[in-house]
Amino acid sequence: MQLLEDRVLKDGVVREGSVLKVDSFLNHQLDIPLFVEMGREFARIFDGCEINKVLTIEASGIAIACFAAQQIGCPVVFAKKSRTKNIAGDLWHSKVESYTHGKIYDVVVSRDFLGPNDRVLIIDDFLANGAALTGLINMVQQSGATLVGAGIAIEKAFQPGGDLLRSRGVRIESLVRIKSMSPETGIEFC
Amino acid sequence: MQLLEDRVLKDGVVREGSVLKVDSFLNHQLDIPLFVEMGREFARIFDGCEINKVLTIEASGIAIACFAAQQIGCPVVFAKKSRTKNIAGDLWHSKVESYTHGKIYDVVVSRDFLGPNDRVLIIDDFLANGAALTGLINMVQQSGATLVGAGIAIEKAFQPGGDLLRSRGVRIESLVRIKSMSPETGIEFC
Repeated sequence: MQLLEDRVLKDGVVREGSVLKVDSFLNHQLDIPLFVEMGREFARIFDGCEINKVLTIEASGIAIACFAAQQIGCPVVFAKKSRTKNIAGDLWHSKVESYTHGKIYDVVVSRDFLGPNDRVLIIDDFLANGAALTGLINMVQQSGATLVGAGIAIEKAFQPGGDLLRSRGVRIESLVRIKSMSPETGIEFC
Repeated sequence: MQLLEDRVLKDGVVREGSVLKVDSFLNHQLDIPLFVEMGREFARIFDGCEINKVLTIEASGIAIACFAAQQIGCPVVFAKKSRTKNIAGDLWHSKVESYTHGKIYDVVVSRDFLGPNDRVLIIDDFLANGAALTGLINMVQQSGATLVGAGIAIEKAFQPGGDLLRSRGVRIESLVRIKSMSPETGIEFC
């Protein structure tokens, strides 16, 4: 998506350790007109897939998921990062390791809002090692819902998550795919 | 706001201990057309206030903030619940006690996205004891920004947060104000 590539080049900041800071427009301050366009693009890409639920994970996936769901015409469900050990019987749950925060989260979704009648599009802001996406896919599978695919804003294609999940048959559509990046050489897209 | 009152009556579930579960439409599964209407209502209420930034807190404030900001025509900034003790020099921060989770969070906003030139509308899903809202107001004050007011989806008016903050001069506009509720008697609005 040219609009998002342009914005990443203009306002993204590459740091050591494969860190891409996009907090001025994507995951701390949110440029709403850009989000509306991202939502339109996801709806266009997945047109005809009969999606009835958009699933994401708190916190930075929520805004993108909302504007995608608005265009698709369905609700959003966001998975919660719970640290409680009291996993009740009415939740789907999965373990997700956050590389950013160096922690393992228990991620949960109520069984009331994800089940066999759902056709699910997963939305998230980043795909790198695929930890969050794998956790969400696990919950979709537990629930018996149909996974239509995953829509990602920015994929770090030099990290293994995208290739690994595609090799397992998951349809992943990323608006921007980064081939390589470094503070010295900048960003190269696929 | 009649639409939201009706929905709370229809789909809200009152539990012991002043707990109102609205997870089927407001803070776990999100009914997007309802959010669009809430956003319109906040834009109408605060029309003419020259808001240039909507501030909220992760996670369940983000979606409401996005649709309010879309109508107002400004970006969203969401405060992050950080547990790290490494508060860098470029952050506004505040302590927020979560009654739901029984924890104290360090809440942070980058100084890059909140400063003296901003006219800020705070948006959140719930107002009860006012802990989150007080934390957000503290950061607005630290930054030198102007606080236009706070827009809340559901205020538990039988808890002290709203009255306390109004008595300090904060303009608080709640779409729904609950006077009392219990599993036995149901919900009474103000």
